[in-house]
Amino acid sequence: MTAPKSNTSDYCPLAVVGTVAIDSVETPFGKRNKVFGGSATYFSYVASLFTRVALVAVVGKDFPKEYFETLKGRSIDLSHLEVLRGKTFHWKGRYEEDLNTAHTLETQLNVLLDFRPKLSFKKTPEFIFLANIDPHLQQHVLDQLQPNALRYVACDTMNYWIHHQKTELLKVLKRVDCVVVNDGEARLLTGEVNVMKAAKKISLLGPKHVIVKKGEHGVVLLYEKEFCILPAYPVEDIYDPTGAGDSFAGGVMGYLALTRDISLTNLKKALGVGTIAASFTVQGFGLEGLEKITRRDIENRMRDFQKICRF
Amino acid sequence: MTAPKSNTSDYCPLAVVGTVAIDSVETPFGKRNKVFGGSATYFSYVASLFTRVALVAVVGKDFPKEYFETLKGRSIDLSHLEVLRGKTFHWKGRYEEDLNTAHTLETQLNVLLDFRPKLSFKKTPEFIFLANIDPHLQQHVLDQLQPNALRYVACDTMNYWIHHQKTELLKVLKRVDCVVVNDGEARLLTGEVNVMKAAKKISLLGPKHVIVKKGEHGVVLLYEKEFCILPAYPVEDIYDPTGAGDSFAGGVMGYLALTRDISLTNLKKALGVGTIAASFTVQGFGLEGLEKITRRDIENRMRDFQKICRF
Repeated sequence: MTAPKSNTSDYCPLAVVGTVAIDSVETPFGKRNKVFGGSATYFSYVASLFTRVALVAVVGKDFPKEYFETLKGRSIDLSHLEVLRGKTFHWKGRYEEDLNTAHTLETQLNVLLDFRPKLSFKKTPEFIFLANIDPHLQQHVLDQLQPNALRYVACDTMNYWIHHQKTELLKVLKRVDCVVVNDGEARLLTGEVNVMKAAKKISLLGPKHVIVKKGEHGVVLLYEKEFCILPAYPVEDIYDPTGAGDSFAGGVMGYLALTRDISLTNLKKALGVGTIAASFTVQGFGLEGLEKITRRDIENRMRDFQKICRF
Repeated sequence: MTAPKSNTSDYCPLAVVGTVAIDSVETPFGKRNKVFGGSATYFSYVASLFTRVALVAVVGKDFPKEYFETLKGRSIDLSHLEVLRGKTFHWKGRYEEDLNTAHTLETQLNVLLDFRPKLSFKKTPEFIFLANIDPHLQQHVLDQLQPNALRYVACDTMNYWIHHQKTELLKVLKRVDCVVVNDGEARLLTGEVNVMKAAKKISLLGPKHVIVKKGEHGVVLLYEKEFCILPAYPVEDIYDPTGAGDSFAGGVMGYLALTRDISLTNLKKALGVGTIAASFTVQGFGLEGLEKITRRDIENRMRDFQKICRF
């Protein structure tokens, strides 16, 4: 499962397939009509702080030039970002007062309906993240990668796929090392109310590492038979939770791809990095909270976080 | 604020005033009609693993002899446990499937209506816990203690007192070093949805230490200006959450009274002890989960907990 390190400058140790979107978001703190969003966007924007990341996704002809610049500004590899005739995927959502519950007001799949990624990596990325997208597409991506060249594959999903594409999703789960879901998804997938029991049941479906995100309540990792639990970083000024989960995953996978170490100790540290990345994300609308941060900012807040959690 | 250590064998470094009850509890895992409960019961039962604790409470003539024996078995000082003509306080509750929501089906105050504790300590306990009880009574207890002999006073409360006795409760908060509330109570008391903001607002009401319990999601401590956050210990087999919060407080205060150190570092460790105590409590109905445990069991699980939380 270990591939040699590449020295070619265009090699991406990490690739993500997912959505790139134009969102409309309403939270108790404001309303934004055109926000750059999507699971693969948040993921790659964070992961790019740690490693070169390839973005496998699709946008429409309406995709703003400045959004391309935003991604290029982080040296994200866009050679697999397709531009198709039509409109970019659009999501419109509203959050409740407590910011925990999101109501989807509108979903326009648009170009996503015709998305069928063709991979043409000269060298296979060792780390792959299958962000929340149709499990058929997640498999289609895996099918094009040399299994022996892969070091660590993780996936996300959502309630919709659990309800409507469970068979395909289960096939994906059999092929990944790690799955990242939220507590609601973990419950839906297993029928278990208890997060620890749910994580154990999910690990029986394939992934040897199960990460359950609990939003403001932190995250639970089941690593083979061991648990690791982290609270969320305490943020008082949360403006928009959109993308927090994808930023978290971007931090985790970016850090793993940087360090190339998937031991429990290092995965725990990666969870910390992901948690801190998410804490920056929720402090602004869209990518705002992440725009000005560097790896150093994440490290600084991480030290504070370790102090807060130590006992 | 520091009192000299006493060598007299009947000296109690810790005292709790609160309820001693006969509960009826229904959870998804079963139904029990006569369960020994009450805030001061759980608190003292746990705290007695660490220090000698005086139980200031009232029961009725119906209070079973075996319950007295249970308390005596832990060397809990019962010289302030009054027995009044009438029936013991009775609470009947039912928990939802997720075990987070408790519905009170019945509350019979009984002898609690006539409770007016008279303290007669030869030497004032340095550590005091005012468990969830009418704020008038909490003050009445404080009024009888020499302020200079007190080292650390903490209190709990509940929604009912926040709604109906807020003025009196605010007087209590002005007189304590620490308040222990759950997240719902913190929100009700401050109008703040964000737990960190709520904790800060509560600290402006008096207590320099604010502990917000979040049930299965752990606990947040605001210590002057510093935060400490701990997840809950991962328990898969939760049978009955009743008394978890009081056991937590008993662990915290018992450990503080044992170590006589209220530094941030030690309070963090005390939170860990409280968390572990609560994790044993929820593994059985009533006191069942706590019956057979020793301080050693808490220390062992605590080491496991520290491993789970370290990153």
